[in-house]
Amino acid sequence: MKRFASLAVAAACAAMSLPAAAQFAKPEDAIKYRQSSLFVMSQHFGRLGAMANGRAPYDAAAAAANAEVVADMAKLPWAGFSAGAEGGKARPDIWKEDAKFKERQQKLLEETGKLVTAAKAGNLDALKAQFGPTAASCKACHDSFRAQ
Amino acid sequence: MKRFASLAVAAACAAMSLPAAAQFAKPEDAIKYRQSSLFVMSQHFGRLGAMANGRAPYDAAAAAANAEVVADMAKLPWAGFSAGAEGGKARPDIWKEDAKFKERQQKLLEETGKLVTAAKAGNLDALKAQFGPTAASCKACHDSFRAQ
Repeated sequence: MKRFASLAVAAACAAMSLPAAAQFAKPEDAIKYRQSSLFVMSQHFGRLGAMANGRAPYDAAAAAANAEVVADMAKLPWAGFSAGAEGGKARPDIWKEDAKFKERQQKLLEETGKLVTAAKAGNLDALKAQFGPTAASCKACHDSFRAQ
Repeated sequence: MKRFASLAVAAACAAMSLPAAAQFAKPEDAIKYRQSSLFVMSQHFGRLGAMANGRAPYDAAAAAANAEVVADMAKLPWAGFSAGAEGGKARPDIWKEDAKFKERQQKLLEETGKLVTAAKAGNLDALKAQFGPTAASCKACHDSFRAQ
């Protein structure tokens, strides 16, 4: 995973270092890309939430697998918030408060990294303990940067 | 990556072994999930195509990173083609020709795995050589199972 993580971060950095036009054929693609990657992440995160909240039976292998997907997907959306790709539910503040937006991204990456560790611990209590902080890192970004 | 791959496959298997209702809140979510994961994959695959076809400069690190995302995303969409989630561009044949559909999935997984190896070789010729077979594995499934 470390190697995948570093490659994914390299991809994200490579994406960020290129003009948006070089990454996405059109701004609509950038919007669709970030929405798609966030949706995929949300589906897998939701399955962990169902386990953490007792709505689904705890399954250690499924928990670990879902957490891995969440952590990997968490690296992707940011390239889609490129210059010229305003729109969707993204608040204009994203393009005005870059440091704050990046801090929120970093927090999500940290928490989803911890979520993988917690999910791999193989017990429900560890998953429960880290689900909340991870969800909070989603919410913190949504509260600041996503239109309701 | 091996561990990630095995976990992702475990996730896919876990997804396939559960009723659709347990994985997706509603059929529309399953459709959106498969479309989203395929779209994210296509964006990263397109960047490799741009390099392979000379439309973008070759960047070994970006190629490897994009190939990793392609291979990881290639594992996800299938859970979204669940019973009751017909629709979108998916042809009804998907739900009638399960063995053939799974064979197409398996081929894509094989080719995207080889794509990672090729992209990590660090030279454009290796990437070019594997881009075509990978694209062919996308096309083979689209030709049989995606409405035009």
